[in-house]
Amino acid sequence: MDNDQVIEFNVGGVFYSTTVGTVKREPGRLAEMFSHGADAIPRDSKGKIFIDRDGILFRYILDYLRNQTVILPENFHEKGRLRAEAEFFQLEGLLRFLDNENRQSGYITVGYRGTFAFGRDGMSDVKFRKLARIIVCGRVALCREVFGENLNESRDPDRGPMDRYTGRFFLKHLFLEQAFDNLQEAGFKCVASCGSGTSGGSAELKPGMDPEESRWNHYNEFVFVRD
Amino acid sequence: MDNDQVIEFNVGGVFYSTTVGTVKREPGRLAEMFSHGADAIPRDSKGKIFIDRDGILFRYILDYLRNQTVILPENFHEKGRLRAEAEFFQLEGLLRFLDNENRQSGYITVGYRGTFAFGRDGMSDVKFRKLARIIVCGRVALCREVFGENLNESRDPDRGPMDRYTGRFFLKHLFLEQAFDNLQEAGFKCVASCGSGTSGGSAELKPGMDPEESRWNHYNEFVFVRD
Amino acid sequence: MDNDQVIEFNVGGVFYSTTVGTVKREPGRLAEMFSHGADAIPRDSKGKIFIDRDGILFRYILDYLRNQTVILPENFHEKGRLRAEAEFFQLEGLLRFLDNENRQSGYITVGYRGTFAFGRDGMSDVKFRKLARIIVCGRVALCREVFGENLNESRDPDRGPMDRYTGRFFLKHLFLEQAFDNLQEAGFKCVASCGSGTSGGSAELKPGMDPEESRWNHYNEFVFVRD
Amino acid sequence: MDNDQVIEFNVGGVFYSTTVGTVKREPGRLAEMFSHGADAIPRDSKGKIFIDRDGILFRYILDYLRNQTVILPENFHEKGRLRAEAEFFQLEGLLRFLDNENRQSGYITVGYRGTFAFGRDGMSDVKFRKLARIIVCGRVALCREVFGENLNESRDPDRGPMDRYTGRFFLKHLFLEQAFDNLQEAGFKCVASCGSGTSGGSAELKPGMDPEESRWNHYNEFVFVRD
Amino acid sequence: MDNDQVIEFNVGGVFYSTTVGTVKREPGRLAEMFSHGADAIPRDSKGKIFIDRDGILFRYILDYLRNQTVILPENFHEKGRLRAEAEFFQLEGLLRFLDNENRQSGYITVGYRGTFAFGRDGMSDVKFRKLARIIVCGRVALCREVFGENLNESRDPDRGPMDRYTGRFFLKHLFLEQAFDNLQEAGFKCVASCGSGTSGGSAELKPGMDPEESRWNHYNEFVFVRD
Repeated sequence: MDNDQVIEFNVGGVFYSTTVGTVKREPGRLAEMFSHGADAIPRDSKGKIFIDRDGILFRYILDYLRNQTVILPENFHEKGRLRAEAEFFQLEGLLRFLDNENRQSGYITVGYRGTFAFGRDGMSDVKFRKLARIIVCGRVALCREVFGENLNESRDPDRGPMDRYTGRFFLKHLFLEQAFDNLQEAGFKCVASCGSGTSGGSAELKPGMDPEESRWNHYNEFVFVRD
Repeated sequence: MDNDQVIEFNVGGVFYSTTVGTVKREPGRLAEMFSHGADAIPRDSKGKIFIDRDGILFRYILDYLRNQTVILPENFHEKGRLRAEAEFFQLEGLLRFLDNENRQSGYITVGYRGTFAFGRDGMSDVKFRKLARIIVCGRVALCREVFGENLNESRDPDRGPMDRYTGRFFLKHLFLEQAFDNLQEAGFKCVASCGSGTSGGSAELKPGMDPEESRWNHYNEFVFVRD
Repeated sequence: MDNDQVIEFNVGGVFYSTTVGTVKREPGRLAEMFSHGADAIPRDSKGKIFIDRDGILFRYILDYLRNQTVILPENFHEKGRLRAEAEFFQLEGLLRFLDNENRQSGYITVGYRGTFAFGRDGMSDVKFRKLARIIVCGRVALCREVFGENLNESRDPDRGPMDRYTGRFFLKHLFLEQAFDNLQEAGFKCVASCGSGTSGGSAELKPGMDPEESRWNHYNEFVFVRD
Repeated sequence: MDNDQVIEFNVGGVFYSTTVGTVKREPGRLAEMFSHGADAIPRDSKGKIFIDRDGILFRYILDYLRNQTVILPENFHEKGRLRAEAEFFQLEGLLRFLDNENRQSGYITVGYRGTFAFGRDGMSDVKFRKLARIIVCGRVALCREVFGENLNESRDPDRGPMDRYTGRFFLKHLFLEQAFDNLQEAGFKCVASCGSGTSGGSAELKPGMDPEESRWNHYNEFVFVRD
Repeated sequence: MDNDQVIEFNVGGVFYSTTVGTVKREPGRLAEMFSHGADAIPRDSKGKIFIDRDGILFRYILDYLRNQTVILPENFHEKGRLRAEAEFFQLEGLLRFLDNENRQSGYITVGYRGTFAFGRDGMSDVKFRKLARIIVCGRVALCREVFGENLNESRDPDRGPMDRYTGRFFLKHLFLEQAFDNLQEAGFKCVASCGSGTSGGSAELKPGMDPEESRWNHYNEFVFVRD
């Protein structure tokens, strides 16, 4: 069969059209099917090439054969099902691709102790959020993947396995939204947050602390998750 | 009819193709249909085998017969409807599979009393979140399923039925994000959280308590749910 | 026409297949269509029975006729549209079914004043969340539907109509997650929550109140909604 | 052509069936198409009436012609696309309908200062949430649409345009959940909330204020949005 | 071939109909296909014009050719996939359109320090939320895109690149909900928020500060994201 020849598939009842060249592009069950001559290929009553598999997911199998890659829909909900099809069709490149796509799920919490910067000119001045530190908590491997070079691990030296948890990482910068953006780029989304202030139980202030700043101390923590 | 023979179904108006071997693989209404000879099978005007059931869900019925298992889409919204089809087709393996998939829904709340660790070197040091205990509240059976060996039940010995509720379990470790990850693995997602601090109403501190740590005391609680 | 006869519909361009027995099972416009003999039925150019209605929703009309009930997809978004089809086809049982499904929407807020139980043995002991009361606020009819026997209405005796609002119901038990589970069973989901602590403004404690417990007093409230 | 005649459309490759009477029911491009005799109508190779437009959205164009109204799916995501089709087909009634559906998007914040009612009988009594006022903030036009007669505007008399913003409206009642339900009925959903308490910085209480109630003062604010 | 001629496509197994004029409207692979005469066009066994590409996304390719623009569904999840198709078909206008649609993702946090306005008439008066400043934090380029002229950058003059982060922008007005609406118009949605109050640790008030207002000081912060 010529590579340019248009062929028609009946995959579990859904019809697809492609060319011989496309299905022979990668080794696997489909290429094998076409290596024994046209007569050995099972056909339905209309003469379409018959494959006894799910008809809808074959869309992505063909996509992969056409382009040697697959761009999945942004909200694709059949990854597990597609992997089973890739296994059936013995497409190793597609299996590798799907496994790379399959990032480790988990939670990361980002917290900061903050207050407001008060200057000499009193309340009439503009006061901005003043962060002491951005703390990062979660599975060590996840935190490293998300924050990379920006992660300060000096207070929690790596002595254990990669899948241990930490509550002692912090960031080398003080831009909360940059941390959020890093999490978003890595596929995390913010699902919850909570804040709390301090109580005034400590009568005397530590030396060098502004009383107004001390009054506004709070701890906000933001929960991110990757599915 | 030969097991390799391609057959065509009209299921409520949607067309599927498969082989005789696939539909006879499991006992039930479909296998029974093919046990009385080809003439006894109802057909539509085009000669397709006719089944007066929902056409769309038959996709998963066929999937089950092909693979003896079903991988459902990640956001599958027709579980109740699929169960009704599995009952109609008398596929006991599929019914068992669907019932196993059907996990008990419910809420679990994870809370912690926390503060910040303050050392001798004052405010210039890095302060990390310091958790006293991670408390787990919810239906006893759900909490055990999620946290297993990590659950400390010593303050709430099991004297009642499994479907009672508890507010007195806590975890054997202090890694909040590990608790979150356990909940995620069990299919829970975080839907809300809230935090509160302490008031300074208690003038004198308990012995051994650092005044700074006492000031930062807070209680954060995180609400998780499984649908 | 024989009840076992397979018939083909063209409903607004979508094709369905069923049997005469199915469409005659319930009184209404379809049964009526088949009561005047085959010649009176409108047909398209291929001889399919023609109905000038939406083709996609006919799936559920047929489902209802086959099973005398309908299991809708869990995230079904065309309830209003399906009701219009049920009216057109004059299927009273289906209309009743859809109206029963149609639960009243609304918000319920669950709040609790809480603290931590402190015993004689000081801070080294495990402290658990200690709830004073679980307060339920919202439309009276909704609160009763969700909490039933568990609702204590003694502080808000029913003097007005069912659609009035209350902020004075509370639960007969102290299990917050049981309240959440009741809400979930009734189709509510948690969409927000907020917490706040007390201020230390009240210098002297009421008699019998532990100063540590007083310090940890907080009020958390959880917002649930049913669409 | 007779009004009862069944006609078949090929709309961009998707097939629909309806009657001549349906397409001539409203003036516009479709009715116009049928006013010049059957020969002037463009057809595809199978003789179906051909329209070079999106095939999927034609479902709602037909719905409108059949019923003179359209019930859109609850989560319909192609409103912009459907409007473009209604413009192409010159269906003025459908355009008006879609524009009426198109409500103004925006945020409304509902907040309340609250505490708990404490009576003479001390802590053993049941304490309920006690609201001082329900404050409504947002665009003036939106707030009026949602709360209507329940809105007290006396502290923010209308001196400016309708699209200005206000932070000075409040409700004539004290039922928070009724406000939530009003927002839900108007298509808003709750997306966030936050709470805070007061600090004890004010040593002396205002006359007539219960010290316990003062301790429990908090401000909770709930963020609602309409897409 | 005449511009009015109806042509039929088989795109990877999905059938579309359009006219020659539509596909020749823009330069690219499709127009090129029709420039060499009808015989050079690949066809399937039924004579339909064959294209070995994804069948479903071709809907939007045709839309673009018909209208020289594309209105995508509001929740379109295949932007990456559609871009790959636009590249294959060499439609430069569509590529430009998709790139313009593709807004930069990221987080913006809006926070305010607030209290309640207390007047001379004591607690019986209505108290409204009183905002000191609305603070805007995030990537500089994003903040400018959303708030434009309303952004006060005087405390954070632009000395660095556009992709740096800031925590020192604030708004020229005090309407929180206007800020929310600006974010919504720019495609952001609110995903989390948290609040905290002040502690009473600062015994003496700054001059000119009302003690009641000082008691109610809080800091609420709202997290917005664009995907």
